[in-house]
Order: sequence, then structure tokens, then C-alpha cells
Amino acid sequence: MIESPNNEKIINYSKLKQKKYRDESSLFIVEGKHLVEEAKKNNLCVEEFILGENINEKAMRKLSNLDNVPTHLAVCKKMEEKEIHGNVLILDGVQDPGNLGTIIRSSVAFNIDTIILSLNTVDPYNDKVIRASEGMLFNINIIRGNLLEIIPKLNMDIYSTNVVNGKNLDEVEFKEPFALIVGNEGKGVSPEVQKLVNNNIYITMNNKCESLNVGVATSIILYEAERKIMHDK
Amino acid sequence: MIESPNNEKIINYSKLKQKKYRDESSLFIVEGKHLVEEAKKNNLCVEEFILGENINEKAMRKLSNLDNVPTHLAVCKKMEEKEIHGNVLILDGVQDPGNLGTIIRSSVAFNIDTIILSLNTVDPYNDKVIRASEGMLFNINIIRGNLLEIIPKLNMDIYSTNVVNGKNLDEVEFKEPFALIVGNEGKGVSPEVQKLVNNNIYITMNNKCESLNVGVATSIILYEAERKIMHDK
Repeated sequence: MIESPNNEKIINYSKLKQKKYRDESSLFIVEGKHLVEEAKKNNLCVEEFILGENINEKAMRKLSNLDNVPTHLAVCKKMEEKEIHGNVLILDGVQDPGNLGTIIRSSVAFNIDTIILSLNTVDPYNDKVIRASEGMLFNINIIRGNLLEIIPKLNMDIYSTNVVNGKNLDEVEFKEPFALIVGNEGKGVSPEVQKLVNNNIYITMNNKCESLNVGVATSIILYEAERKIMHDK
Repeated sequence: MIESPNNEKIINYSKLKQKKYRDESSLFIVEGKHLVEEAKKNNLCVEEFILGENINEKAMRKLSNLDNVPTHLAVCKKMEEKEIHGNVLILDGVQDPGNLGTIIRSSVAFNIDTIILSLNTVDPYNDKVIRASEGMLFNINIIRGNLLEIIPKLNMDIYSTNVVNGKNLDEVEFKEPFALIVGNEGKGVSPEVQKLVNNNIYITMNNKCESLNVGVATSIILYEAERKIMHDK
């Protein structure tokens, strides 16, 4: 039973709250029984902590990001990046952890196989991303890299979200595999990435509203793509 | 120029961070130039504070919910509740302020006219709701009340989100006006409310994923309803 927050292992693992240490060690933390189980199913669990069994509340609190200390917490190893395959979602600078988590959850729901994150997109192993993804993070291939190098090598239809020169989502025909690029919450897709793509999509909306939340816009397009692909089958 | 966080007016207005005082006074706070302008456009602004003009940083910090003190902040009066009209969205126990804000934003985008909040739904004048709504809060009629009394009086098609006995969204026909009910993040629509509705909708998804974020699910249904209604016109 670990009883001190100053235990050497606890001190080291607690550093995983910071991206820098997650990057160095390729480890991250998941909290809550449901997420720990999802991680175990995927053989990612390195060490599990159970309150009152092998750790006390003080030490658990040192590891946890939550206000209410969880009963279960696990230190996990990051997933391996697999080759790009299937339908691809590309995120160019998404900053909000909640948005990234929501996007990962919707991506699994609507049969995206690979998510490619630009180097300036928020870390998917951030605790808020993992929570918002409801553990769906473990069910999809996630890659991080330089979009300007990766996108030109993709051999599929590539769509970007952009009102300028865009085609109404309702009129877009999707066939598998496809790639969709969505951008930063405030700035959208960056101009350099935009140059690599010819197919722009926009979602028609009431003119009182300038734009949708990026997680919502992404999810609507993925829903619509999946709906059309299923109709064609 | 107000220079002290202990100024009586500042102390009183700072209480508006709490729902209790917002309810008592029918006032609330908006922060940031963009949102203050949206509030002014709608004649809701009671008193405006501009950093360096009529308030200093210390006093502004006392009013603000943000880590970075805003340049503009306004105390506003709540909007009047108008009669239920047009297309209606009903929220039964949505708890997360970010989700409510996102839902309000999407509701304006997809031509919902009235949002009805159950008594246990998060306060729409919570600062996080206002921010996530991107000011769209001011462009829609929002009512709070007892759903068990309100729903039976609605004279329109009423849909609920529920996998059990649900119809695939793709197959649902919408005609205006309609009402859609969505529920709590974890528990969905409450059983008492569910009893009042015959039309259930579900969104087909990959079976690895149990459910979508409530903001995403709501937005997809509203997008799809709007798309079908426009096609019929």
C-alpha cells in the first residue's frame, strides 16, 4: 500500500500531468474505472492503482487531475502509431481538449479509421481529451505529424471545411476512402494546408450564426459522409 | 474611474458570478468586446466597464471569471421569456455549461426559435454557457419551466432521442413546426418526460461507440431536420 504522496514512484508518475513528461516517457494517465478498463482491454495498462487496495487517498490525489479522487487510476503506455489507412480525419490546430475528445468520439461513431493531428494540435493524451473521448481514443489510429508532408502523399479525395469557394455539404458526394481536414477553433484551416486541397465544404446555416463549434461541424460532416456512403452500398 | 475591488458596486456585481444572485436580480455578466457588443445590440446592457477608462485592472479582476482580465465587461439584464413559438428544442437536465452553449449556438444555426430548459438544466446565464454560445444566446427565445406541464400543451410533432423503439434519424420525416427533446449527458431523457412522447429517434453509429456527446447528437438532428425541411420546400 502506497501511503505517501512523496513516494518516489508517485512523484515520478505525477509528472505525467505535463505533456513534456508524457512525450519523454510515452506514458500517460487514465482515471476512473470505465476508462481504466478500456485501457486494459487494449493492453495499454502499465500499472493500476486502486484506492484502499494498493494506494491511499493522499497518494492518489497526487496522481489525479480530478477534484474528486477516483477509485481507479492507471499509468498506461501510449498507443503505437499505425500506418494511415481507411477514412482519414485531419486536424489542423485544434486547441481545446474538450473539442478534440468530442471529435475522437464522433470519429469512432462514424467510421473514421485514422486521425492525423498537426504538430500544434492539443495532445490527445491530455486528461481532458481522454475524458471527453469517453475512452474512444483507444479505438482509433492516431498519428501526429507535419501536415504539409503528409497530405500530398494521401491517395484519396480530400475535403476541407471552408466557406470560401465551398460546396454545400448537402451536395457533396463522398466515396471511401476519403479525407476531411478541419481547422483551429478561431482561425480555421491554415492557409498553407488550404493550398493543398481543392474540395471545400460548407454547412448552410442561419445568417445570424457565423460558425459552428468545430466538434459539431466535424461530427455533422462525418455523419453526412457515412449516411451517403451507406446509401450507395 | 473605479480603482478598488472593494468598491460597493463592484462587490455587488461580483456576486453575479453565482446563480443565486443572478436569479434574484435578473442580471448577469458578459465578458469580452465581442459579447458585450452582442449584448448592447440587443439592448441588454445595464452598465459597461472598460479597462483603463472607467475601471482599473484590480477592480475588473474582481468582476471577471477569466484568467486574463477582459478589456470590456458588461452587467446585463436577462432577456424576457417570450411565448413558445416556431421550432422548439427541449433540454431535459443538460448539466455541462459547454454543452448548453454549443447547443444554443447550433440551435440558432439550424433555425430553432424557442429553447425550453427543464428546471434542473444548467443556468444559461452561467459565464461558460455564454462563452460557448458565442453570443448566440441573445438571438433565441429561452424559457425555463416544468417540462411535465409544458410538453403536453405543445401542438406539434414531438421527437425524443432514445435508442429504445427509436427510428433511424435517416428515416424520420420532419415538418415545421416540430419539437425535439434531448436529455442529460449520462442518463438521457428522464423516464417521466419520455412517457409523454411517442416518436423516438436514434443515430446509427459504429457499435464500438455507445453514444455521442449531447451537443453533437442535438446538432446532427437539427442539421438533418433543417436539411429535410428545406428539401420539401
